[in-house]
Amino acid sequence: MRMYDIILKKRNGGELDESEINELVRGVTDKSIPDYQITAFLMAVFFRGMTARETAELTLAMARSGDMMDLSGINGVTVDKHSTGGVGDKTTLIIAPIAAALGGKAAKLSGRGLGHTGGTIDKLESIPGFKTEIEPEEFIKQVNEIGLCVAGQSENLAPADKRLYALRDVTATVDCIPLIAASVMSKKIAAGSQNIVLDVKCGSGAFMKNPEAARELAKAMVDIGKSAGRNVTALITNMDAPLGNAVGNALEVKEAVSVLCGQVKNDLYELCVILAAHMAEYISGKAYDECVSDVKKVIENGSAFEKLCKMITAQGGDASALENTEKLPKAQIIHEIRAEKSGYIGAMNAEEIGMAAMILGAGRAKADDKIDCGAGIILRKKTGDYISENDVIAELYTNKSDPLKEAEQRFMNALHITEAPPEKLPLVYDIIK
Amino acid sequence: MRMYDIILKKRNGGELDESEINELVRGVTDKSIPDYQITAFLMAVFFRGMTARETAELTLAMARSGDMMDLSGINGVTVDKHSTGGVGDKTTLIIAPIAAALGGKAAKLSGRGLGHTGGTIDKLESIPGFKTEIEPEEFIKQVNEIGLCVAGQSENLAPADKRLYALRDVTATVDCIPLIAASVMSKKIAAGSQNIVLDVKCGSGAFMKNPEAARELAKAMVDIGKSAGRNVTALITNMDAPLGNAVGNALEVKEAVSVLCGQVKNDLYELCVILAAHMAEYISGKAYDECVSDVKKVIENGSAFEKLCKMITAQGGDASALENTEKLPKAQIIHEIRAEKSGYIGAMNAEEIGMAAMILGAGRAKADDKIDCGAGIILRKKTGDYISENDVIAELYTNKSDPLKEAEQRFMNALHITEAPPEKLPLVYDIIK
Repeated sequence: MRMYDIILKKRNGGELDESEINELVRGVTDKSIPDYQITAFLMAVFFRGMTARETAELTLAMARSGDMMDLSGINGVTVDKHSTGGVGDKTTLIIAPIAAALGGKAAKLSGRGLGHTGGTIDKLESIPGFKTEIEPEEFIKQVNEIGLCVAGQSENLAPADKRLYALRDVTATVDCIPLIAASVMSKKIAAGSQNIVLDVKCGSGAFMKNPEAARELAKAMVDIGKSAGRNVTALITNMDAPLGNAVGNALEVKEAVSVLCGQVKNDLYELCVILAAHMAEYISGKAYDECVSDVKKVIENGSAFEKLCKMITAQGGDASALENTEKLPKAQIIHEIRAEKSGYIGAMNAEEIGMAAMILGAGRAKADDKIDCGAGIILRKKTGDYISENDVIAELYTNKSDPLKEAEQRFMNALHITEAPPEKLPLVYDIIK
Repeated sequence: MRMYDIILKKRNGGELDESEINELVRGVTDKSIPDYQITAFLMAVFFRGMTARETAELTLAMARSGDMMDLSGINGVTVDKHSTGGVGDKTTLIIAPIAAALGGKAAKLSGRGLGHTGGTIDKLESIPGFKTEIEPEEFIKQVNEIGLCVAGQSENLAPADKRLYALRDVTATVDCIPLIAASVMSKKIAAGSQNIVLDVKCGSGAFMKNPEAARELAKAMVDIGKSAGRNVTALITNMDAPLGNAVGNALEVKEAVSVLCGQVKNDLYELCVILAAHMAEYISGKAYDECVSDVKKVIENGSAFEKLCKMITAQGGDASALENTEKLPKAQIIHEIRAEKSGYIGAMNAEEIGMAAMILGAGRAKADDKIDCGAGIILRKKTGDYISENDVIAELYTNKSDPLKEAEQRFMNALHITEAPPEKLPLVYDIIK
C-alpha cells in the first residue's frame, strides 16, 4: 500500500519526502508499481504541483535510475546544451562545434525525435556513414581529442523518466512544469556535463505558449541544476515562427553548415551566437560581450566548421557531403507554394508548419515510423516579410506526392496575412541563471 | 486518442457530453481503454468534479453496462434500500421484511462485504441452508408470493462500475462524491426497483465523516434517481458508534431478529422504524406519522418476523434457527473486555471497532478471505453510558485465540472515556427527497 499512500499524500497537497520520492522512482524503474497507480499520481501532481525540493529530488532519483555518464576522464570544461524543442531547431549542430573551437568540451548525448522532424541524431544521420552508437571510452577519447562528440543516448539513460514520459504522453499529463523540468534535467544530469545551457522555447511552435510559463519552467530547471551542483543558464527564446529557413533533416544540416560558415546571418545565426556566447562564458570565464566576439571569430575564421568536419569524420561520416551537398539525401519532388494575395506575413503557426513537414516525411507520427531525410520545407518568406501575389513563399520537399495537397493546405492555414507589418517580437525574452 | 481527449477535457475543467460519457463507459466495460488512462481520468474527476448532468449520465451508462433487472413482472410497489455502509449495520434484515408485511415488494440484490463484517448476503448465509443464488424468474415469483427476496447480485451487474471501483480503490480516488454517487446508484438502477430509500451514514464509522459531505452525497444520489425516473428518499444518519449492539455476521442476525420481534428497542430499532416508515410512504402513500404507526404495528403483531421466516424457508434456509439460535454458527471463545477506569463513554470510533471485529474473523481484509460467521463483538455499553471500573464493556467472539490481544487493544483504543456525559448526537441529521 506504499504507492497508495504516496498518491494520497500528493492528492491531498502534501509534500513528498526524499524516501517517498526514491521509493516512487525505484518502483517506476523496476516496474513494481503498476501503470495505473503511476498515472493517478501524475494527474495528482498536475493539480498539486511539486515544490522545488520535491522536483529536484525526483530529478536526481530519475537521473540515477539508469546509466550515469562519468565524464571525469575529460580534460577541460564540459558543456552541454538542451532545447525544449521547436520547429527548425538545428542549433546543436552549430553550437557544439563553436564550443569545441573555443576550447570547450561538448560531450553531447542526443535522442531521436517524435513529431515534426527528427532529433539531432536523426539530422546527423542524413550525412552518409555517420555513426552515433559510440562506446563510453571512445566517446571520452573523441571529446578529449576533438572537443566534441554527439552520440545517441543509451537505452538505459534515465529509464524512470522514459517510463513516466510514455505514461504522461497518453494521459494528458505532459504539460506540467515540474514534470517537464524533472524529465529534461534528469537526462542532462545523467549525461554528466558540468555546465549546461538551456534554450527554453516559447511561442506557437513550442510547448510553452507564453513567456510566463517558459520563465517558470526555466527557473525550475536552473534550480534543479543548482541542487545537483551543475551550472545552468536558461534562455527563453521566441518560437513563434520556425527557426531559420529550413525544416527537415538534410535541409537543416545544409542550413546549419551555411550558418556555421558565416554565409547566412538570419535569426538562426543570431540565436546561435547568443547561445554559444553563454556557453563560452563557462568555457573561458570572460565577460559576455567578449564571448560574443569570440564566437563570431570562430565562425568567421572557419575553425568552428572545421570542428564539425572533424567530428563527422571521427564518427565515420563523409564530411565532404557538407560542402558537396549533392551527397546528402534529396527529395524527388520540390513543390513551390505561392502567395494567393499580397500583404505582410503577420504570423506563422510554427507548430502547423512542423506538422506539414511531418506529413511530407520529415518526422515521425509514431516511434517506429521511418524518416525521409530529404523531405521538409524551405521557407522563402518569414514573419514580417511583405509578399506580393504569386511570390514563392515556401518550397515543399518530398519523395511522395500523395501528401502534397494536405501539406500545402496545412502550410497555408499556418499563415496569417495582414495589411500592416506585425510588431517585431524579441528573439530572446529572458535569461535565467 | 479519444480517451486522451476525454481526460484532457476533464483535466481542463470541461463538462463531458453524453456521447463522451457513453464512449468512456463502453471502453471501461469492453476493456478497450487501458487501466492507466482510466485512473488518470478518475484523478482528474477527483479534482474537477462532475456536474449533476454528467454524474447522472455516468450512472445510467454504468447501470446499462451489464444486466438490467426487469421487475415489470412484479405486481405491486417495488422498494429497495441501500446503506452507504457502517459498522453493525443489519438494517436490511429488518426493513425488507417490514416492507413486505406492509404490502410492498422488496426485491433486493445484495453484495458480499469487504472490511469489518460481511455484507447482507454474508450475514444471511450464517443461517443454515440459506441460498442467495436465485434465477431471475424464481426471484420475481418469490417477490410476488412472499413480498420479499434478498438475492446475491449477478457478476454482470454494472460491470463498468466494478472495474472503476477496483481502480479507484488502489489510486486514492474512492472519496469523490460524484463517483460514489454514480457507483451506488448505477447498481440500484440496474436492480430495477421504482422506490429507493438510501441510508447515508455519517461519522467515525462511515465513509462520510461529516454531515455536510453526507448531505452533498445524498443530494447527488437523489438527483441521479430523479434523472432515471426513480423515487428516492435519502436519510443522513449517525454512524459515530456501531449501530445496535452486535458486530459480526451471526451475532447481527440474532440482533436483527430481536429488533424485528420488538424485543429490543435500541438505536437500531429506532433507525429501522424511521427507514421503514419512509419506505412505507412509497408503499401506502400515507402520511409519515401514520407510516410510523404501521411499521410499529407489523413489528408488534409478528407479521414482519413472519415475512423474514417465509423468505428464509423459500430460499432453502432453516427458519427455526432464528428462534433456536443454537443452530447458528458459534464462537468457541468469548472474551470479556472490562473497564480499566470509571467514567462516561464519550465517543467510540466505530471504524476501529469494526477493524477489531474483522481481526476476530468477522470480515474480509482481502476479497478471497473466508469469513467466520460466529465471530464478532457484542457491545454491552455504548456512547453516553456510564461505566464503573471492571464493568464488562464488550464481549469478543472468535474461534481463533491469536488475534484476541490485538482486537482488544484496538477496541480499547476506540473508546474515549470522559468525566462528563457526551452531548447526545441526533440519530437522523437530515432527510433529502
